Amino acid sequence: MITSFNIFVPLLMGSGSSLRTGLKVRELGCRKVMVVYDKGIKEVGIADQIIENLQNAGIETVLFDGVLPDPPDTMVEEAAEIARKEKIDGIVAVGGGSSIDTAKGINVLINNEPPLRKYFGVQKNLKPGVPMVFIPTTSGTGSEVTNMCVISCTSLGTKDSVVSPVCVAKLAILDPDLTLGLPPKMTAATGIDAFAHAVESLTGGQANPLSDALAREAIRLIVKWLPIAYKDGSNLEARENMLLASTYAGMAFTNALVHLGHSIAHTLGANFHIPHGIACAVALPEVIEYTAKTEYKKVKMICESMGVPLKEDASPEEIGTTARQAIRSFIKSLDIPNMKELGLPLEAVLKLAPKVVADNGFAIVPYRISAAKVAQMLKSAYDA
Amino acid sequence: MITSFNIFVPLLMGSGSSLRTGLKVRELGCRKVMVVYDKGIKEVGIADQIIENLQNAGIETVLFDGVLPDPPDTMVEEAAEIARKEKIDGIVAVGGGSSIDTAKGINVLINNEPPLRKYFGVQKNLKPGVPMVFIPTTSGTGSEVTNMCVISCTSLGTKDSVVSPVCVAKLAILDPDLTLGLPPKMTAATGIDAFAHAVESLTGGQANPLSDALAREAIRLIVKWLPIAYKDGSNLEARENMLLASTYAGMAFTNALVHLGHSIAHTLGANFHIPHGIACAVALPEVIEYTAKTEYKKVKMICESMGVPLKEDASPEEIGTTARQAIRSFIKSLDIPNMKELGLPLEAVLKLAPKVVADNGFAIVPYRISAAKVAQMLKSAYDA
Repeated sequence: MITSFNIFVPLLMGSGSSLRTGLKVRELGCRKVMVVYDKGIKEVGIADQIIENLQNAGIETVLFDGVLPDPPDTMVEEAAEIARKEKIDGIVAVGGGSSIDTAKGINVLINNEPPLRKYFGVQKNLKPGVPMVFIPTTSGTGSEVTNMCVISCTSLGTKDSVVSPVCVAKLAILDPDLTLGLPPKMTAATGIDAFAHAVESLTGGQANPLSDALAREAIRLIVKWLPIAYKDGSNLEARENMLLASTYAGMAFTNALVHLGHSIAHTLGANFHIPHGIACAVALPEVIEYTAKTEYKKVKMICESMGVPLKEDASPEEIGTTARQAIRSFIKSLDIPNMKELGLPLEAVLKLAPKVVADNGFAIVPYRISAAKVAQMLKSAYDA
Repeated sequence: MITSFNIFVPLLMGSGSSLRTGLKVRELGCRKVMVVYDKGIKEVGIADQIIENLQNAGIETVLFDGVLPDPPDTMVEEAAEIARKEKIDGIVAVGGGSSIDTAKGINVLINNEPPLRKYFGVQKNLKPGVPMVFIPTTSGTGSEVTNMCVISCTSLGTKDSVVSPVCVAKLAILDPDLTLGLPPKMTAATGIDAFAHAVESLTGGQANPLSDALAREAIRLIVKWLPIAYKDGSNLEARENMLLASTYAGMAFTNALVHLGHSIAHTLGANFHIPHGIACAVALPEVIEYTAKTEYKKVKMICESMGVPLKEDASPEEIGTTARQAIRSFIKSLDIPNMKELGLPLEAVLKLAPKVVADNGFAIVPYRISAAKVAQMLKSAYDA
């Protein structure tokens, strides 16, 4: 099979690396940048630290602290209007997936007319924006190294995405110091998002040897370090390895894509507003078990990367069962709730099955599956 | 430690992928490209196949089939003169490291005045050249994904390199079909070059977690597949995995750099004109053993990636000895000759030690070592 690995973002990594933000932004030729973040990042002092670093490097800053979770298109359009008026020549995003995706949405609109929803889908011919630098403060999204932003369409009440070179950063700064303060619940929820990226990209239809290698390394690191980061948030080695793992998973899935687990997550997220990482986790064990019907070699790799023993001659069914049990037990060890524990009504969940197979991402699921079968999967996962 | 991973080349990979050369070159906006290769690649019909593919895509071709091993600067300058006169707007290199490095040298001179030797060293401000596409036909050099070209300086009788963004390709096409015909001896010699890149970048002073992950994957693949490709050149799976491994090792070392093994290889190569891969192999076991004195954690990773068992509490010395023995035995299994078998006179070899510590690459060796110690290392390696 002919495959490609196209999307790359240069990385600056290590404890303290965010102290080079101003230096790096200046090297990119920027003089006046918009800093994009949310109120939470401001409260813990991380935003001010980055802003000061930029200003000390002689860079003028325009602040946008209005990032909302599941970034709405209208919010992005307001921020882009400010960016255009202020004639910024760079964007620095500091935060989780929402801040980074907001920055990407702003960049789409720097030289392309609003509204943002016009550009949902794969866009090859958008006018370029300005250089962007992303500084993740969670270890999960991987958005710092992808070519897409996920945006909530307020008029349609759905989530959609812009996929374009305009969404690709010039640099991602991976400073684990900035993730030390992430509370245990968010550490687990974002970490399991990265895990979902890794296992889905490994089993997806566009996987290739390099994305596989990165995904396997991500799984290995997450299984080893996420439980440690969850129990002891101040463990810098765990934080560093989780940040690397989420970036590797991001590199893998932006090239290999994710599939059914994310179609389920987007549908649950849009209807019940549960955190994305948790939405990714709830049915992941059952999705991977089902995926073993066709992609059993890849599911075997998941088990191997998780350090779960398998017989040399295990059947696809045995591989699927083993993977389901291993992933479920990993999720439970992180106290991530199932759908019942989340308080979602079973009937309402099952009614979403047709929406899952109608999700934009469903086209890239590496097999065909009926809504009835998805409902069965959701039922099994409900209180598992 | 703060580190970075900056140099990335998009990859198109898989059996048959070189049949998309014309398509990809057109996507890059090229209309008239110089095709760079040597007589050997022409003789086996690979050059004609690529040229025809380009022409079928409506791309005009200017042919340069004069690539020489250890490319001399004067040859590169002649080719660049043709490229400028013909006003080419792209370069396609097909072959091993010499063809790819020649293409890079030509690109340096497209918009920068000759002679080429003016640009030896790290160059940040060269004028950009034209888009380049590299199609390796050996699995060793990794040059398709690096930012440097190694050139022989005819006036000084030394080898030196240009390190610059001008040397970075827009695309590397990894088609294992093109490597099927590589004879066993060259398969072993080029494969061990990739192995040397991986183990040296893993233990080098600029290694970082991503280069480490790529280097470990390269070692794992090479130890598994090189013996198979060596014994049965027609094994496509082995050829594919070796091509991937050499590219991963290239990605690793262009970011993390190589060290003492390559200083020795360049010195031996310049004085005795032995193939680069073999020159890399001769003292590699002893180099890695010595490196274990400081970088024992990394040398442990080498052993683990090679599948060589180590006690959990092994001392740096034990790790070094184990690694030396494992690497030596791997080299011997590929029938790669030691210096005695190559017919190099021991005294002449030992006299080169001061040249090794004067090599341009010596500055990046992750420890200080005397010429006397290097001589001792060469003596141990001589008939090992």
